[in-house]
Amino acid sequence: MSNFSFNLLATDNKARCGEILTARGIIRTPAFMPVGTAATVKALYPEQVRELGADIILGNTYHLMLRPGAERINRLGGLHKFMDWQYPILTDSGGFQVMSLANLRKISEKGVKFRSHIDGQEYELTPERSIEIQKLLNSDIIMQLDECINLPAPLEEIERAMELSLRWAERSKIAFNNSEKNALFAIVQGGDNIKLRANSAASLINIGFDGYAIGGLAVGEPQATMFNVLTDIVPILPSNKPHYLMGVGKPDDILGGIERGIDMFDCVHPTRAGRHGRVYTQYGSINLKNARHKDDYRPLDAQSDNPNCVRFSRAYLHHLVKSQEILGAMILSQINLAYYQKLMREAREAIMGGKFNDFAAKVREGWQRGDIRPLG
Amino acid sequence: MSNFSFNLLATDNKARCGEILTARGIIRTPAFMPVGTAATVKALYPEQVRELGADIILGNTYHLMLRPGAERINRLGGLHKFMDWQYPILTDSGGFQVMSLANLRKISEKGVKFRSHIDGQEYELTPERSIEIQKLLNSDIIMQLDECINLPAPLEEIERAMELSLRWAERSKIAFNNSEKNALFAIVQGGDNIKLRANSAASLINIGFDGYAIGGLAVGEPQATMFNVLTDIVPILPSNKPHYLMGVGKPDDILGGIERGIDMFDCVHPTRAGRHGRVYTQYGSINLKNARHKDDYRPLDAQSDNPNCVRFSRAYLHHLVKSQEILGAMILSQINLAYYQKLMREAREAIMGGKFNDFAAKVREGWQRGDIRPLG
Repeated sequence: MSNFSFNLLATDNKARCGEILTARGIIRTPAFMPVGTAATVKALYPEQVRELGADIILGNTYHLMLRPGAERINRLGGLHKFMDWQYPILTDSGGFQVMSLANLRKISEKGVKFRSHIDGQEYELTPERSIEIQKLLNSDIIMQLDECINLPAPLEEIERAMELSLRWAERSKIAFNNSEKNALFAIVQGGDNIKLRANSAASLINIGFDGYAIGGLAVGEPQATMFNVLTDIVPILPSNKPHYLMGVGKPDDILGGIERGIDMFDCVHPTRAGRHGRVYTQYGSINLKNARHKDDYRPLDAQSDNPNCVRFSRAYLHHLVKSQEILGAMILSQINLAYYQKLMREAREAIMGGKFNDFAAKVREGWQRGDIRPLG
Repeated sequence: MSNFSFNLLATDNKARCGEILTARGIIRTPAFMPVGTAATVKALYPEQVRELGADIILGNTYHLMLRPGAERINRLGGLHKFMDWQYPILTDSGGFQVMSLANLRKISEKGVKFRSHIDGQEYELTPERSIEIQKLLNSDIIMQLDECINLPAPLEEIERAMELSLRWAERSKIAFNNSEKNALFAIVQGGDNIKLRANSAASLINIGFDGYAIGGLAVGEPQATMFNVLTDIVPILPSNKPHYLMGVGKPDDILGGIERGIDMFDCVHPTRAGRHGRVYTQYGSINLKNARHKDDYRPLDAQSDNPNCVRFSRAYLHHLVKSQEILGAMILSQINLAYYQKLMREAREAIMGGKFNDFAAKVREGWQRGDIRPLG
């Protein structure tokens, strides 16, 4: 018996509030998973990530298999111990980043051969090796290897990749071998084609997994296309299993995902945007590089309960960003992850209270109102 | 009357333990001042700097006058408010960094003209303008503008710069105008020539300052040369005023400085070394880039009271450094500043107990023993 289960606590229209039970603790859903690419959520101490409300983080198989190596992390006691994060970790399969980062990729029925973007060394990633790596890392939630293609793409290409991903899902299930320690999630593919998506979902459900992810979105298509896929496909997924939208997204993508029944999200956006001077507040997105902040003595958001939004002037944050100071990356990444986790916490409360629509409308109203007026 | 005073609490041979009283709080001496170059001690939150034991930090006039500008910081409420550091700040005069960083420098009796290394804009720094900038920043301890030359240098060049620095000291005193809010320190120059150094010190004492710095050391000369200057010159300085050795140094420079009667130190070394993978522990200096740490499951220093030295494996720290992760810079800068501040705290306790020689011998013994043996 797996230690993994999902309790659906409440629904509000299609939005769901629940909890995923794992051997390493509870994941409250809807959940946002900060991305700990190379065994660190960039520019934050692990305890900061936890304090901001993360129940789970994501680790990248591609990055970790290249450096420092899965076998090495295993010898060192697993990924949790390695990075001093004692709570659940979901690892991706490595497939997506092989496609976006590695050199000389060669895909076959067996898997994908590629060269490391760091030192050119040759690697092979198969469904079986991906599962093996994720087990070496001690991942709590393991993802199947899939082939994720960019959109737009020709229908036959979308279909080919979806069918291959399905066969890899079957092999992943066998390689996973009913592990008691971890859970295995499948990934629905099929691009922007609803029929292919539905076929993919039905076949995966037939095989049977601990959770179902929707992959291959946020890869170049308009937001409306992504939302259309979610609207049609999420209702097909088993309601007693977690639904995970991979690699998404900005706050309004996440709000739209929750509305369509998604339980889990991950994205590098909050930390990456923070490192580049962009922050999220109740006023929406603010670019601190903008010269309007140069002399602005006001805090980012005087009403925020996050001290970093209140204690520093916009002028100081602007200065840190312009000077490319590490403290700027630290503060702005913290502000963004705090905003994301607050959004998730309030979304959960709203769903539990049957008021998600009101909540979403209020949040969007704030974004639409936009930032406070410039000085002078 | 100035709010600034110095109490000498104990001496142990030449080593001194005291406290500097300022309007913003007490500075326990010997003190190490972390350098907050561009209004941030790199890779640390201000509260971390405080918790590690810093009573005072240093701000760089050169960096701050270029970006974001002294007048701007003043409009924003001063440097303390700007960077959220409510404790004492010492600012340098800008002279040293004009010489090492700026372009097209042109020095004259009046001051120094130069172009910004950031955008090529032209600036002029005179003794009067330096004092004005430091007052705009709201600095607690203001340094006179001086001309600091590299060693070795011809005697006539050393003498010329020392004499110019003396005339600038007189003008600085007049410009300072017995401010009640701040203190003004003079800078002894004269290179490695004891006679010139003694002349410089005598003339500055004659003018009268709140504290006396020794500048123009750690600029290329051997450590023994620096120590010789300190051995001969520190005893000439008024014993009822703080003695500050500028821009120094590595832990063994600091220990040697304390032994020779120095009360205050500053240096970018602990944070800069941390950003480049070098850390200080009871075992001396350790280069975490070294491949010997790749598989080392052991903590940096199991006996340390600093959690960052205990909770992470050397393998993890090595990984962060090799991956150029921001968290690596954060952790290693913290470890180095923690080590420096612990060294100062224990030095103060040892001087108070009349056991500084034993303490210094024990610390050096640890450094000499070196790091724990590599694994295997």
